[in-house]
Amino acid sequence: MTAWSIFEIMGIIAFAVSGALTGIQKRLDVFGVLVLAVTTAIGGGVLRDAIIGNTPPLTFRDPTFFIISALATIAVFFTYRWLDRFKYTIQIFDAIGLGAFTATSAKLALQHNLDSLLIVTTVAVITGIGGSVMRDVFVKEIPYVFRQEVYAITTIVGAMALYYSQAYFAGNIPLYLCFCITTGLRICCIKYGWNFPVLGMDSKRTVSGGRDSGR
Amino acid sequence: MTAWSIFEIMGIIAFAVSGALTGIQKRLDVFGVLVLAVTTAIGGGVLRDAIIGNTPPLTFRDPTFFIISALATIAVFFTYRWLDRFKYTIQIFDAIGLGAFTATSAKLALQHNLDSLLIVTTVAVITGIGGSVMRDVFVKEIPYVFRQEVYAITTIVGAMALYYSQAYFAGNIPLYLCFCITTGLRICCIKYGWNFPVLGMDSKRTVSGGRDSGR
Amino acid sequence: MTAWSIFEIMGIIAFAVSGALTGIQKRLDVFGVLVLAVTTAIGGGVLRDAIIGNTPPLTFRDPTFFIISALATIAVFFTYRWLDRFKYTIQIFDAIGLGAFTATSAKLALQHNLDSLLIVTTVAVITGIGGSVMRDVFVKEIPYVFRQEVYAITTIVGAMALYYSQAYFAGNIPLYLCFCITTGLRICCIKYGWNFPVLGMDSKRTVSGGRDSGR
Repeated sequence: MTAWSIFEIMGIIAFAVSGALTGIQKRLDVFGVLVLAVTTAIGGGVLRDAIIGNTPPLTFRDPTFFIISALATIAVFFTYRWLDRFKYTIQIFDAIGLGAFTATSAKLALQHNLDSLLIVTTVAVITGIGGSVMRDVFVKEIPYVFRQEVYAITTIVGAMALYYSQAYFAGNIPLYLCFCITTGLRICCIKYGWNFPVLGMDSKRTVSGGRDSGR
Repeated sequence: MTAWSIFEIMGIIAFAVSGALTGIQKRLDVFGVLVLAVTTAIGGGVLRDAIIGNTPPLTFRDPTFFIISALATIAVFFTYRWLDRFKYTIQIFDAIGLGAFTATSAKLALQHNLDSLLIVTTVAVITGIGGSVMRDVFVKEIPYVFRQEVYAITTIVGAMALYYSQAYFAGNIPLYLCFCITTGLRICCIKYGWNFPVLGMDSKRTVSGGRDSGR
Repeated sequence: MTAWSIFEIMGIIAFAVSGALTGIQKRLDVFGVLVLAVTTAIGGGVLRDAIIGNTPPLTFRDPTFFIISALATIAVFFTYRWLDRFKYTIQIFDAIGLGAFTATSAKLALQHNLDSLLIVTTVAVITGIGGSVMRDVFVKEIPYVFRQEVYAITTIVGAMALYYSQAYFAGNIPLYLCFCITTGLRICCIKYGWNFPVLGMDSKRTVSGGRDSGR
């Protein structure tokens, strides 16, 4: 499972970097930036474990991810002025991590006898977006994943693939299938700028998009 | 228990509709609206189960409420422009759901050996307002139930009725008593516009209400 | 353990008072103020218990802290206009409570076989700042502990002291050591106004501090 660990670590780094940059931008102090980054990185998994009763959370029993997210945050403290150059790399890391966590979370849900498609998918979505929702709530923003980008839908498609493919394939094949679909789809979303529609309260406003233009 | 299920389903629909309308109003994308609506509908119960250790949450073991809240949200996507006409019906559904969830949550707390009046009441309140507090936090509002309306107090009175009546009545009578009191009181609050007082930091401001007038 | 209980009760009172004053200032209704105060007081402990799987939470099994926080809130309703005079006393109570909860939470984590330094510290931090983070999120503020004051770091130092000293001292000595360090350090922070640095996104802005000056 070494390749798998590397995928998850890439995700943890990307999530921590996104939390740290948000914290610096919102002018938190260094402790606040550290908490925000670690929360973004491991918050989704801790939330998943608290909800499904897998306590103490995996990350608390084996603090590897915790340490990596703290180290990534400290690295950001010294490099944040130049991180814009690596924006695309961080997005790829994030997509790889999203795929890895979707696969492991969906499998964890199945292992906890949650074998409805809807719930397996929900557990994967909570893990995938939980950290970034907490990050945005803490800095007083409406969660980004609810507003603009196709992010969680890739998790949904990946978790569905894992759920249906496990009847036909043995071993880790469903896990890898889920990973490839989630990560591949997410990279396409980034590359082609796919967005979800927003329903207008008023047809005129939808056409002009006026209410959002000031943001 | 069929009547009971119908009461709970009416509540789930009302909660999901309120979450979906809030999401559309705040211009979330369709995925964000769906997450917000489902969170509003089942969030209180999931929070209750995570806190009292009833994991995985009931809604995750039997996804009926989950499916109903998702279907209600999809229905809102096609009808939200005309839902204002049904505002009163939705409020009645909400009151019925609040009564049903108060009764089942208070009973669940008792079954988990939490037999202090204060805690039984707290568990009922968490279930009743948890979903709408999450909804408001996600869209960057101070939770509505903390500011304006007499909502949770009806849950408190209902849970107290269940707690004290269980010594005198057998079977499901305390449950129905709790339901009738909670729902009846809530409908009175809606009908007569009962509000809670707000304490002023400064007597002048309280009289003029100036600080709030700009909202 | 009577001295210990008194320390914890002083903390619960200070946390509840801070929640109640915030609620009044934000013009919540009396029910909202009560929920906010109780959440600030016991929220950190409930969150800790939900995460580490110590369910139902301690505060739900023995509602003493719950009752004290509710009584403190009711007292604030009648005295909030004059509480400014006791600001320093409340801060001292808060520091004593922080020390007591850091010690008991770190010990609870060790009892749950979470024996990594990082995780013991994290559990103590969640308990110490969890309530005030919830308070600030509910009233739409970026959590104060992330922005301005050295608060949680005293918990971190105290929890580390407990973790390392338990190998050398028997009985309750590590607990008292942790308490003295956390509370002592926190009182120094208040007295000398120690703050954490904020990283600037742009060197000019950091020097002038312009963005924050309007707050």
